[in-house]
Amino acid sequence: MTYCVGMVLDRGLVFMSDTRTNAGLDNISTFKKLTTWESPGDRVITLLSAGNLATTQSVISLLDERSKSPGDRTPSLLGVPSLFQAARMVADTLREVIERTGDSGQRADGTFNATIMLGGQIAGSPPRLFLIYPEGNFIEAGDDTPFFQMGETKYGRPILVRAFDPDLSFEAAMKLLLVSFDSTLKANLTVGAPFDFHIYETDSLTIGQTGRIEADSPWFEAVSKGWGEALKSALDSLPDVKLSKLQ
Amino acid sequence: MTYCVGMVLDRGLVFMSDTRTNAGLDNISTFKKLTTWESPGDRVITLLSAGNLATTQSVISLLDERSKSPGDRTPSLLGVPSLFQAARMVADTLREVIERTGDSGQRADGTFNATIMLGGQIAGSPPRLFLIYPEGNFIEAGDDTPFFQMGETKYGRPILVRAFDPDLSFEAAMKLLLVSFDSTLKANLTVGAPFDFHIYETDSLTIGQTGRIEADSPWFEAVSKGWGEALKSALDSLPDVKLSKLQ
Repeated sequence: MTYCVGMVLDRGLVFMSDTRTNAGLDNISTFKKLTTWESPGDRVITLLSAGNLATTQSVISLLDERSKSPGDRTPSLLGVPSLFQAARMVADTLREVIERTGDSGQRADGTFNATIMLGGQIAGSPPRLFLIYPEGNFIEAGDDTPFFQMGETKYGRPILVRAFDPDLSFEAAMKLLLVSFDSTLKANLTVGAPFDFHIYETDSLTIGQTGRIEADSPWFEAVSKGWGEALKSALDSLPDVKLSKLQ
Repeated sequence: MTYCVGMVLDRGLVFMSDTRTNAGLDNISTFKKLTTWESPGDRVITLLSAGNLATTQSVISLLDERSKSPGDRTPSLLGVPSLFQAARMVADTLREVIERTGDSGQRADGTFNATIMLGGQIAGSPPRLFLIYPEGNFIEAGDDTPFFQMGETKYGRPILVRAFDPDLSFEAAMKLLLVSFDSTLKANLTVGAPFDFHIYETDSLTIGQTGRIEADSPWFEAVSKGWGEALKSALDSLPDVKLSKLQ
């Protein structure tokens, strides 16, 4: 499995993904699932991937090759005029890779599927965030649903639903994400640290803070340990009722 | 779907279940999923059910009929010498009902399945809690895993894992359960209020507090509304890190 979150804040976009891949519980590895393309001053595009690793690596390689050959920049992620067109291109590439693998050779029903989150900004437009399905269609985040999750979404969702706020600071958003990831990590062995992140500030049009948080980083340990206590205090702060009143 | 939790505390057992049943998203109803048998001074047994409603109702009716015919109290839930034997009886009845439905008439693969949680106390033994699978085998809660969930378990699990403590008061345990149920409710339409509960105090050997919490009960509303704020304060209380240090 995988766990990835992308969120649209007033001040920019924040992405985080785990790095665990597995082929069965007895075969786990670490792979980067967060990729960023940049053309400083013009665009920044970040892609998070979940699903079959061969599929997602192939998609990224195809996108990457196209964006690196300057004579052939159209169509490429660095050449498209809008993020919507970027999402279409990624969606087409994704469907193409899935179809090519699925049509020939050995069959493995459904296992070639992958889902991709794509977000970023192209000069002249606001930041946007898309969730792309293996079928090649996609949805965009809006005011009502300003964040997307992929993979093992359930354990980490309640805290996101409750505490997400578009005017969160980047620091607060990162804390929120770490708590959401920690909740998932504690319940599903196929989601694992380290976590990759990218923080994109609106209109900077350049890659923002990006990095990797290890399981033994002092900050993650403090968040993980502190959260249990913080939750207990939060529970204590809720109103008590004499149980006899409930009958 | 369904959401049920049973927990073993130092001071007794606490059970809670939702009441929503559904046959498709467009056909929902309210049914009680919590049943209690009592023989004051001798035993209290509580059963929570999840899965096919026809199966679980049939199981409960069979158990109930047997426990009500005094001449035939053995084997019956009110006659067995231990809670382990009670779990075996429930498991056998469950398997019998599933097999009878599955063996003849129309087929609906897997849909006759049900899972049952059984807890209580019989004089002379401590309280015990079992989780019974449709195959007719079962597991018992212990010190390492002192609570069980059934149905849509994922959304409500992180708060239980973090905040559960065997020495919780009954009031605190109920608050914890309501938060766990509220998180589930907010994410899965097939889990719905009202919630039935039963609080059993160790060695009382009589039904404890039992009742139903409606979605519009002032307490549940206070917990549900207060929890969002409490979580935000909890997040704020976690240590901040200068993001530049993460790189």
